[in-house]
Amino acid sequence: MPADQLTATFAALADPTRRAILARLIAGECSVTELAAPFDMSLPAVSKHLRVLERAGLIARRPDAQFRHCRLEAAPLKEVSEWAEKYRHVWEHRLNRLDAYLQELQTKERSHGRKPRRK
Amino acid sequence: MPADQLTATFAALADPTRRAILARLIAGECSVTELAAPFDMSLPAVSKHLRVLERAGLIARRPDAQFRHCRLEAAPLKEVSEWAEKYRHVWEHRLNRLDAYLQELQTKERSHGRKPRRK
Repeated sequence: MPADQLTATFAALADPTRRAILARLIAGECSVTELAAPFDMSLPAVSKHLRVLERAGLIARRPDAQFRHCRLEAAPLKEVSEWAEKYRHVWEHRLNRLDAYLQELQTKERSHGRKPRRK
Repeated sequence: MPADQLTATFAALADPTRRAILARLIAGECSVTELAAPFDMSLPAVSKHLRVLERAGLIARRPDAQFRHCRLEAAPLKEVSEWAEKYRHVWEHRLNRLDAYLQELQTKERSHGRKPRRK
């Protein structure tokens, strides 16, 4: 696992094809050929993405007689979730303020005709 | 906001200095000079990181008479959290399996002396 796991994880996730590969692996292990099928991409190009995901510890590969099976390794994604969680109160606070503002507008609308309360 | 917001967000987060800047901004708005203070880095180098964060919509800058104040924009981080959430059952399943295995080991230990049940 790299020294700065989060940096490696975020760098690996900064690509829509790599995120689509991870999404495919939620359903379970599959071969490189199966993984490559939905992409309009050569097998070597897909393999390059798999190497990035593997180096970041997001997938593991099991060598087989015929296929190389890939499986999802979710530990780095747990770390991403925990990292983002530290910011939850920031976006919830923003949404709460928006909610309070909308309620204020509705109250003003209901008391239409009465002099609106100044802030 | 870029067409592929998640890619832009992950690319911006793939740097420890940029993540440290965001962490500093949890406490509230501050000037570029204040943001740069804890880093052993020139002001232009910090400004470069701020531009990356700004382009990704992770911070907003308010021009001031004397300072340029930065504030955190948490909406892209909410998106990161929601994206990671889709993988929660994968890591929880992995932890549950580990837990089940440890319980099995403990049960075997307690029944030490009795013939262990074969799987």
